[in-house]
Amino acid sequence: MNSSRLSKLSQSLRTSGLDALALNPGPSLAYLTGLHFHLMERPIVAFFTADATPTLVLPELEMLKVQDLPFEVKTFPYRENPAEWEQVFLAAGQSLGLMGKHIGIEPLQMRVLEFRKVQAIAGQADCPDATRVVGNLRICKEPEEVAAMRNAVRIAQNALEAALPFIKIGLTEKEIAAELVVQLLRFGSQSDLPFPPIVSSGPHGANPHAIPSKRQLRAGDLLVVDWGATMDGYISDLTRTFAVGQVDEEYRKIHQFVLEANAAGRAAAKPGVPCANVDRATRAVIEKAGYGQYFTHRTGHGIGIEAHEDPYMRSDNMQLLEPGMAFTVEPGIYLPGRNGVRIEDNIVITETDAECLSDMPRELKEVE
Amino acid sequence: MNSSRLSKLSQSLRTSGLDALALNPGPSLAYLTGLHFHLMERPIVAFFTADATPTLVLPELEMLKVQDLPFEVKTFPYRENPAEWEQVFLAAGQSLGLMGKHIGIEPLQMRVLEFRKVQAIAGQADCPDATRVVGNLRICKEPEEVAAMRNAVRIAQNALEAALPFIKIGLTEKEIAAELVVQLLRFGSQSDLPFPPIVSSGPHGANPHAIPSKRQLRAGDLLVVDWGATMDGYISDLTRTFAVGQVDEEYRKIHQFVLEANAAGRAAAKPGVPCANVDRATRAVIEKAGYGQYFTHRTGHGIGIEAHEDPYMRSDNMQLLEPGMAFTVEPGIYLPGRNGVRIEDNIVITETDAECLSDMPRELKEVE
Repeated sequence: MNSSRLSKLSQSLRTSGLDALALNPGPSLAYLTGLHFHLMERPIVAFFTADATPTLVLPELEMLKVQDLPFEVKTFPYRENPAEWEQVFLAAGQSLGLMGKHIGIEPLQMRVLEFRKVQAIAGQADCPDATRVVGNLRICKEPEEVAAMRNAVRIAQNALEAALPFIKIGLTEKEIAAELVVQLLRFGSQSDLPFPPIVSSGPHGANPHAIPSKRQLRAGDLLVVDWGATMDGYISDLTRTFAVGQVDEEYRKIHQFVLEANAAGRAAAKPGVPCANVDRATRAVIEKAGYGQYFTHRTGHGIGIEAHEDPYMRSDNMQLLEPGMAFTVEPGIYLPGRNGVRIEDNIVITETDAECLSDMPRELKEVE
Repeated sequence: MNSSRLSKLSQSLRTSGLDALALNPGPSLAYLTGLHFHLMERPIVAFFTADATPTLVLPELEMLKVQDLPFEVKTFPYRENPAEWEQVFLAAGQSLGLMGKHIGIEPLQMRVLEFRKVQAIAGQADCPDATRVVGNLRICKEPEEVAAMRNAVRIAQNALEAALPFIKIGLTEKEIAAELVVQLLRFGSQSDLPFPPIVSSGPHGANPHAIPSKRQLRAGDLLVVDWGATMDGYISDLTRTFAVGQVDEEYRKIHQFVLEANAAGRAAAKPGVPCANVDRATRAVIEKAGYGQYFTHRTGHGIGIEAHEDPYMRSDNMQLLEPGMAFTVEPGIYLPGRNGVRIEDNIVITETDAECLSDMPRELKEVE
């Protein structure tokens, strides 16, 4: 599988105007090669060109990871003294004839640590943004990738179902988050979760990216749970909002609006339709209800190896949806200082329509 | 606490030759401000100067996180359209008078995404490596930081003790790793573990950075467990090596050599001694035993907010140990294709000596 991805990369490099692509450890390197490294103080960079053997600069102590690869790779290992590293990078660049050439990089993934080594090779030439080169390969998921995501959704849903009976008034957000993580692992998630679960209650729920705190659940709170699992390297990313006992009528209403917006967004997702339409569909519902100013983020983001990747469901994104694209639909309403609601599902575009991978009930359920 | 760290930063910026320091989300930003953000496709950068109010460029939807800070901060929020972001960064740079000035960065932490925004402000001026500016503040831990690390060690040790009875011949490395993670959370670790545990058996143990696989434990294996917990934002990072049933005499011997090397490294750690001495002390034991070529990495790394930070116990690092410095001592012997041993403890330098935070027995214990 990975060597077919490498062939596709070669083709796409031929038409990209780039002389090479440089990747540090992360999702794209894992996608292309199956190689996983911790991102640490020792720079690791893989260089890909249209025709030459993929070339890897890495610490000697990581050499065992590359010995059983199903494709050829040329390695430039270095030892522990950082003063020697640049020479090893330059030697790798020289072996590929990359001195002064255009080497593309991924700005969201590459750190300045690795970038400066790549720049030393590129010299005066700039290092263009090559996110799309691998991104265009990654954006349409193959059936086995969708299967992994389907499993990641199943694990996440089972884990939250198992954690729900644990939730009680008086427990802290942190305690609930810890229980949810335990259940995610029990149900088979990899331990590298896509992100630490968000469990946010009452006014904390009005912060879309809240971090679980020591705040205790109170009757009348809305409780936002945004969580996901990892399976075979692919993630899920879901959100449900619960009522802690009886909640105010306005909170019931905004939950209903978000639920309708979520349904409208899912219904808008089809092949051939711009990403913007998915955003507009959810936003129209919330604006009509009079809460437009409280829906402060885009409708969704692509998912796959990463929890946030292309395509983005944003009102200015005219990219057309294609079969295999996978993303979240997650409208929300956030009332500052009071409460928040978000309902998030995971969608994959099919040949003729879209499949929603998640089916956990979305209606406002009481927990206490 | 954080405002006193900010005062120290101001002092250190005055003598640094830098006009400003730019930080993206990560350990240093958290250390200085208590602010946590996911590292995502929306660039977030905080700018610090010796005298001006700290200034933050961030997405509007993260604004709630900065409203209750215990110190003043100036914010430049942006909305969802990436085309507008650079202007917001330039406005922030202008408000601080940073156009064309020397803005220091952390190459290990900052991505090209944020770096290019900082460069747009700096213009032709270079962006020097400012790792030491915050690093020098972070490197000597305050008593409450050591207390958090002591807790993180305690949680880790209790978790492995609780997981040991679960380990049986036939279980996979992945299954053992998952059980260990569950126990880490049960004993109170934050769910953002410092790193996914390494559980590596037999020949996999010869790879210092192995990823838990589906390999099943067999009688005669050595089993390397490298794991840690997170508590109040601080980490622990330990390793113990076990025997799966009866193991070859040579494996018992190399375990004993590593145990002696670990003790020698811990004994060498004292205030006023160069980091290199700790490395030399462990290496001398293993070299004398004839296994020098199989100890392929440095002896240790600093720990704190990050699992790898300054100071590094490397033979070429003449930095002197000071009270409050915290680091690992983790010699190993790796026999390619056969087995590996590593024993890792966490040390804090005191006024007169060193404290070993970890005390889980290091002797070769049989599990099966």
